[in-house]
Amino acid sequence: MADVMHWARWGNPTHMTNIPASAWQLIELAFGETRETPAVDKSTLAVPPISLTDAAMVSLRQIVGSDNVTTDNDSRISHTRGKSTTDLIKIRTGDLTDAPDAVVRPRDTDDVAAILAVCAEHTIAVVPYGGGTSVVGGLAAQSDGYTGVVALDLTHLNTFAVDHESRLATLGAGLLAPQAEKLLNEHGYTLGHFPQSFEYASIGGFAATRSSGQASSGYGRFDSMVKALTVVTPMGVLRLDAAPASAAGPDLRQLILGSEGAFGIITDVTIAVRPQPAQRIYETWRFATFADGTRAMRKLTQDGLNPTVFRLSDEAETAINLAKPGSIGADNPGGCLMVAGYEGTPERVSRLHDDVTAALEESGGTSLGAEDGEHWAKGRYDGPYLRDALLDHGILTETLETATFWSRLHTTYVAVKEAIEAALAPYGNAVIVMCHISHVYESGASLYFTVVTKQHEDGIEQWSAAKKAASDAMIATGATITHHHAIGRDHKPWFAQEIGDIGVSVLRAVKQRIDPTGILNPGVLIP
Amino acid sequence: MADVMHWARWGNPTHMTNIPASAWQLIELAFGETRETPAVDKSTLAVPPISLTDAAMVSLRQIVGSDNVTTDNDSRISHTRGKSTTDLIKIRTGDLTDAPDAVVRPRDTDDVAAILAVCAEHTIAVVPYGGGTSVVGGLAAQSDGYTGVVALDLTHLNTFAVDHESRLATLGAGLLAPQAEKLLNEHGYTLGHFPQSFEYASIGGFAATRSSGQASSGYGRFDSMVKALTVVTPMGVLRLDAAPASAAGPDLRQLILGSEGAFGIITDVTIAVRPQPAQRIYETWRFATFADGTRAMRKLTQDGLNPTVFRLSDEAETAINLAKPGSIGADNPGGCLMVAGYEGTPERVSRLHDDVTAALEESGGTSLGAEDGEHWAKGRYDGPYLRDALLDHGILTETLETATFWSRLHTTYVAVKEAIEAALAPYGNAVIVMCHISHVYESGASLYFTVVTKQHEDGIEQWSAAKKAASDAMIATGATITHHHAIGRDHKPWFAQEIGDIGVSVLRAVKQRIDPTGILNPGVLIP
Repeated sequence: MADVMHWARWGNPTHMTNIPASAWQLIELAFGETRETPAVDKSTLAVPPISLTDAAMVSLRQIVGSDNVTTDNDSRISHTRGKSTTDLIKIRTGDLTDAPDAVVRPRDTDDVAAILAVCAEHTIAVVPYGGGTSVVGGLAAQSDGYTGVVALDLTHLNTFAVDHESRLATLGAGLLAPQAEKLLNEHGYTLGHFPQSFEYASIGGFAATRSSGQASSGYGRFDSMVKALTVVTPMGVLRLDAAPASAAGPDLRQLILGSEGAFGIITDVTIAVRPQPAQRIYETWRFATFADGTRAMRKLTQDGLNPTVFRLSDEAETAINLAKPGSIGADNPGGCLMVAGYEGTPERVSRLHDDVTAALEESGGTSLGAEDGEHWAKGRYDGPYLRDALLDHGILTETLETATFWSRLHTTYVAVKEAIEAALAPYGNAVIVMCHISHVYESGASLYFTVVTKQHEDGIEQWSAAKKAASDAMIATGATITHHHAIGRDHKPWFAQEIGDIGVSVLRAVKQRIDPTGILNPGVLIP
Repeated sequence: MADVMHWARWGNPTHMTNIPASAWQLIELAFGETRETPAVDKSTLAVPPISLTDAAMVSLRQIVGSDNVTTDNDSRISHTRGKSTTDLIKIRTGDLTDAPDAVVRPRDTDDVAAILAVCAEHTIAVVPYGGGTSVVGGLAAQSDGYTGVVALDLTHLNTFAVDHESRLATLGAGLLAPQAEKLLNEHGYTLGHFPQSFEYASIGGFAATRSSGQASSGYGRFDSMVKALTVVTPMGVLRLDAAPASAAGPDLRQLILGSEGAFGIITDVTIAVRPQPAQRIYETWRFATFADGTRAMRKLTQDGLNPTVFRLSDEAETAINLAKPGSIGADNPGGCLMVAGYEGTPERVSRLHDDVTAALEESGGTSLGAEDGEHWAKGRYDGPYLRDALLDHGILTETLETATFWSRLHTTYVAVKEAIEAALAPYGNAVIVMCHISHVYESGASLYFTVVTKQHEDGIEQWSAAKKAASDAMIATGATITHHHAIGRDHKPWFAQEIGDIGVSVLRAVKQRIDPTGILNPGVLIP
């Protein structure tokens, strides 16, 4: 079991990192003097009073037992919001306005159904809580109009079953990714799903937010792995579990995937699993420009040549992430760095490696060998830790992401980059915008931007300006508002534009039918 | 442009087939004496009176022009129902109760929107009509409670555009598959979608019914190819067109795919296309038993070895389909026949062929070479023509299909087969039930049954008994009610069981919101 996440930072409290010396050099060069901006002392935090009625508390305790209903400050603080930079700034400055009134831990699907009945009766907002890793405001329920907010902590929903013949595993929604991976490994399988949030993200969260991992090129998106699921709604339980594919009407699984707790609580998912790879190789390549590297990725993907991991950093990300001595050769040739990773049986890895290597060479890439690839693989979950270390020194770092079809990708890339730079320029500090492609499809790809700048007095307002400008640029260029971070509260205005009035109307109709009292994660998803 | 389909039979009137001599031998052996049961004379058909009001007719003509609103008998008869055996028996005996009052041909998306407005105003049922190939009652609208029924013939929605960079084509919903394939071929692409209905099925129909073709193992299901779409609802137009994959909420494309005209009229779809294959090889294999062949298919699919075409007939289908002299060797060794087909570049075909060949040999298969494979490919669209020829002689032939996970497949196979045999036994004639697997996934596969028996006096009631028993068996064994034929009117009771009360409630909520007057293909899909 993973350690509980730090109340005001990303990740495992024992893994806190400092800013490496090479990064300090860059920071001083870009931003000049910095100042320490530590989080407030946890003991000084003012936790809001509990607004749940005694009757509601009694009913909740009757369902799950007193041990599984907690209202102490630590519980409430640790279940407050997710881990976007905005969330971090809020909690670092002591803002606990979104703290739930109680944390309730159902033991099974029946408990969830009973809890929803009590919450509907008492008009209590229910926020499903898996790993607490949302970066889009997915865990900050609207409390106005409710008698209280319950964080439904799914920790106990940790069931596990394997159907070897169908190569499927049914996983409880509360299993965190490392637990699920360990259980699968014991049977010779892998989840194949390794997003940067891996250490704390949950199976239910992966499904509810349509997560996509760093090896999506090889294993696919999480939603594509889901073949069956159980979701508990205030109207009853919906179990969809008939076949890998069907022509029986609209695919209702796809209505629940990405529903972020607004349509129900996903209690388990049945996913396609793959054999645990016997071999893993991660290599890097250099392309002269981002356009060249993008073209190569497109060609390989359309030719059916998919490395398991396939990433390409633009010029800025390549320069900054590798600004350490000797990283890509003494002559530091610049260009754009690509990671191509191969996982599987030795035979499969060998063949895929040879095919991809030949195709990348033909596409103008220069092989840089395995050293930096292994370095990437080792540090693949480190980004969010560094963000906290930077925030400690008033450096604001945040990411945002999108996807679109290949023919629009460059336009979206330029538009989003320029929009962020323009929006942050008035704050008077250097703005670094970096980007990579890390998820590829036959018809398009994702774009993942990292923004670094000096935090202004009101960091939330500052980031909000950049986020709005970037989001406007995505929609204006025909891209999606999110490729793998979900909608939450933060993306709602742009989501409404993306799916239009009819799309919004359909989602509202489903919501009203399935959750007539509106208790399910209110304020999230539905524009 | 294909010839208009025969009013009372499947397919092109010039391609009518007779029963081959080898089949006659089998028929006489199995059923004894037969009698001719020809269709009624078309000139004697009594077409119901037109119930649309003059005001409605004027409004419809104003939108699309008089040429595009037809009410003559030929038009109305040719747009009556689809092509299930039940549909054929009805029309052969002169039952035109489901004839539309008028056939309306919109020229573009705006026309469709305007027509829906008029139909909503006058409470006219609208049946989207592409190729007229439904085999599940998808084109027989409920007329009670409506002032009339309009067949919305999508023939003129034949737009075509290619995005080479994204390898996407945007196809008008009214394009028939052969037209679409021809247009794509001119640009070096293939649709990769070849269901048995290929000659007459339409692009919109493929999307609205989640069609799956004979090469689905290589190219995927039609729904998996769709990356963007336009659907016109009575509330307005919904265009979903942002990215190949997204985390922006539930995937609304997947709510429209499979909606069978009940949520709106799909006017175009943007699909992933593939390079036209330079080479095609179809070979056959023999496995000792259906279980052995199934195991081999599962192993290859789970190992990522997908022939472009991958089919396996059970013992009965193998024996009957190949009951011709010398078909699988003079010694007629029995067992089960598998078709493995390979399409692509010569390099790709060569490598896939070698890999699959080695794996099938290792799995106990015996290669039978290319002769029967090429024979299968040549006759791949012939089945429905033979059905008509058999119906002419009182032999009832119909198909039904399902899918489920590998671990349930054998149970479903046995249960469905036995249920059909038991349901038809009381009619006192021999019953032949054959089955094949033709669509495979990592976690499961389809089962496609063909039933042949002597037609009883009331052939519709007779088939209905078999269909009910088979459908009950599918649901009882946890399989889907349809893998690629859709719901229509025929599958509704079992669809309701498959998705449960919550699923039904969700579909109704969407329907009521998006189509408040209920004009869209009433009686279809929604239980």
